[in-house]
Amino acid sequence: MNTEIITIGDEILIGQIVDTNSAWIAARLNEAGFTVTRKLSIGDNRGEIVAAVDGALAKSDAVIITGGLGPTKDDITKLTLAEMFGGRMVCDEETYMRNERTLAARGIEYNELNRGQAMVPDTATVLQNLHGTAPGMWFERDGKVVVSLPGVPFEMKELMTAEVLPRLLAYFKQGKVVHRTAITFGLAESVLAATIASWEDALPEYLHLAYLPSPSQIRLRLSAYDIKSDSEETEIDRRFKELERMIPEYFVGYEDDTVASATAALLRKAGATLAVAESCTGGALSASFTAMAGASEYFLGGVVSYSNDVKANVLGVPRDTLELYGAVSEETAMAMADGVRCLCGSDYALSTTGIAGPAGGSEEKPVGTVWIGLATPNGTMARKFVFSRLRPQNIERFAAAAANMLRLELVSALR
Amino acid sequence: MNTEIITIGDEILIGQIVDTNSAWIAARLNEAGFTVTRKLSIGDNRGEIVAAVDGALAKSDAVIITGGLGPTKDDITKLTLAEMFGGRMVCDEETYMRNERTLAARGIEYNELNRGQAMVPDTATVLQNLHGTAPGMWFERDGKVVVSLPGVPFEMKELMTAEVLPRLLAYFKQGKVVHRTAITFGLAESVLAATIASWEDALPEYLHLAYLPSPSQIRLRLSAYDIKSDSEETEIDRRFKELERMIPEYFVGYEDDTVASATAALLRKAGATLAVAESCTGGALSASFTAMAGASEYFLGGVVSYSNDVKANVLGVPRDTLELYGAVSEETAMAMADGVRCLCGSDYALSTTGIAGPAGGSEEKPVGTVWIGLATPNGTMARKFVFSRLRPQNIERFAAAAANMLRLELVSALR
Repeated sequence: MNTEIITIGDEILIGQIVDTNSAWIAARLNEAGFTVTRKLSIGDNRGEIVAAVDGALAKSDAVIITGGLGPTKDDITKLTLAEMFGGRMVCDEETYMRNERTLAARGIEYNELNRGQAMVPDTATVLQNLHGTAPGMWFERDGKVVVSLPGVPFEMKELMTAEVLPRLLAYFKQGKVVHRTAITFGLAESVLAATIASWEDALPEYLHLAYLPSPSQIRLRLSAYDIKSDSEETEIDRRFKELERMIPEYFVGYEDDTVASATAALLRKAGATLAVAESCTGGALSASFTAMAGASEYFLGGVVSYSNDVKANVLGVPRDTLELYGAVSEETAMAMADGVRCLCGSDYALSTTGIAGPAGGSEEKPVGTVWIGLATPNGTMARKFVFSRLRPQNIERFAAAAANMLRLELVSALR
Repeated sequence: MNTEIITIGDEILIGQIVDTNSAWIAARLNEAGFTVTRKLSIGDNRGEIVAAVDGALAKSDAVIITGGLGPTKDDITKLTLAEMFGGRMVCDEETYMRNERTLAARGIEYNELNRGQAMVPDTATVLQNLHGTAPGMWFERDGKVVVSLPGVPFEMKELMTAEVLPRLLAYFKQGKVVHRTAITFGLAESVLAATIASWEDALPEYLHLAYLPSPSQIRLRLSAYDIKSDSEETEIDRRFKELERMIPEYFVGYEDDTVASATAALLRKAGATLAVAESCTGGALSASFTAMAGASEYFLGGVVSYSNDVKANVLGVPRDTLELYGAVSEETAMAMADGVRCLCGSDYALSTTGIAGPAGGSEEKPVGTVWIGLATPNGTMARKFVFSRLRPQNIERFAAAAANMLRLELVSALR
């Protein structure tokens, strides 16, 4: 069962807004077992709308349209659809009455523009929009469906959930779709692909694998389409468990997990606390934990020791160490981790000291070099990594690599 | 001059990622004077790619494609374009050598999949991707252009800025377009619009004004299209200077300035240093400064005092203050700022203590409440703000409000 999504609005084409509606609709359609084959964004233009809807109907069974339903002149979606599907414009009483009440409550006069919002072609089934003035519309032609929804995200979402999805499921009958995502960290895409090639090759044909890389992790998605039983879901779980045993140190978790969230879960499980000493990450490592609600359960705090004076005076890194080995060194990373662990009284402590760039690199320590320290109840260690030349990506990767070092330590400690 | 954007990737169609690339590209094309007529998202599917590119070329002069250039089997954009534009696959030496160096520096073995990344059809002009392994490609046919870019946002952005936009302007001989953006902070969009209405009304007709709001600032963009002389640029500068005199305390700067970068510039100008004590912002305030290259010139460091013990033991906030007034209070905010200023030996110090949410709010101190402290050589003060119910937005606004408090202080001090 193929579907297409069309989002309408000049503001999308000039890049003034990011179209989040279509991603949300696509996710809901997929969950309900519909395949989304295309997403199209066009302007508030009659010819473009006609061409887009005709083009979509030629290839797909259902078309979901958002936007262009406002009361002003530039919003022409409704009139264009009325022309395409025929019928005469009539007043939808329920919409008319609700809009009158809503506007009166806000002290807004009910004018001609507002009244126009309640007019719909009599060829459409009206989908009542309880949270806005523009009603949704459901058209049918030759066993295919076209749905028009307002572009305001929360109005669109309510209509999709309450009206569109149940009606689509009733109108079309088809098998389920399942997607699961595993999160990996620490292997480049090509190395990961080579490492797990035998696992990938052994996958049954009905499971589709996709690599989804980002600077701080690579996600692997397995999908099964048009399924009749629960066995495909069970099979996906089994295959991911197999993968987890194959690359345990690179396997972070599932779905929305990140290195930081997986580390946080392990800290909670261990009943342990964390403190952080940051030089090159400059607050970003702390922020990756405190961005998550409930961080205070395990995150005590930390020191951003950007200057050497702060490293020495606040964290107690010996001046000799800084002079002899430099700020970016194994010795300084370990002294920073020890220092902040002692200062904050935490079970574990992480430290970062490196060269995020663009300046400050040398032959021996190029931009992208970082030493990460980890102090534990059983001792302190440090590891060196070398990443890229770009400051923002380096900061993100340094922070993720630090969290991952603690994650691996906690995995062993909890074993 | 009409353009279309095609984003390729199954992950877009199942709604797993929101396509931010196409909005960014659309904004840059519009700024350069190109009209974007459609944006299309399709899956990693040969037939769909061919149909989309052919369809776009039939109506538009230039087509920008992102995605589907990874080293794995599901990425088929390059091979499909090679089929469409003919030519034979050859190795791009520059890409090959750079990829080999990059991977070697990271200790990654150069395998068959990596080598494939350097293969390009000889009908394409290679656009060197300095930040990733997949090169961009520029194809021409009958006076029209098709560009293929990697889907990783920072790689795509670098290639668009350095290669694609200059080449498009040269190829299509576009008249000049000028855009200047002023950055404001501290007034809601509707209040800002009312405040500057007389300035807006007096603008000459050939200057177009756009409001570009985001959670932490509102940008005002003035544009002039298809211009022949420098007089329009001079006029834009004059109008913005007028605006600056009109709302001095809300006028942050120009173009890519942020509250943090404007504050950093003032710290440099004053030859002054900064330290930061963060509770609710949990590292994000420090990170907003250290994200900028050269932060070490003025940023000494700070303390993330997430727990009360760290506030007391490291920053020296009196236990009495914490018990009597609470962690979220004027008194604690001032003691934190004083504490970190003393600890790091900085000229200025900022502190944040508040309730980012979703939990932890009360009748008296609802979620979104923050006290911001500012310690200066001439004394210490604190201010309260109340923002929203959403944790990520609150953290961002708390940090921006803190930097802005210092910015205003430095503006007076330097006057």
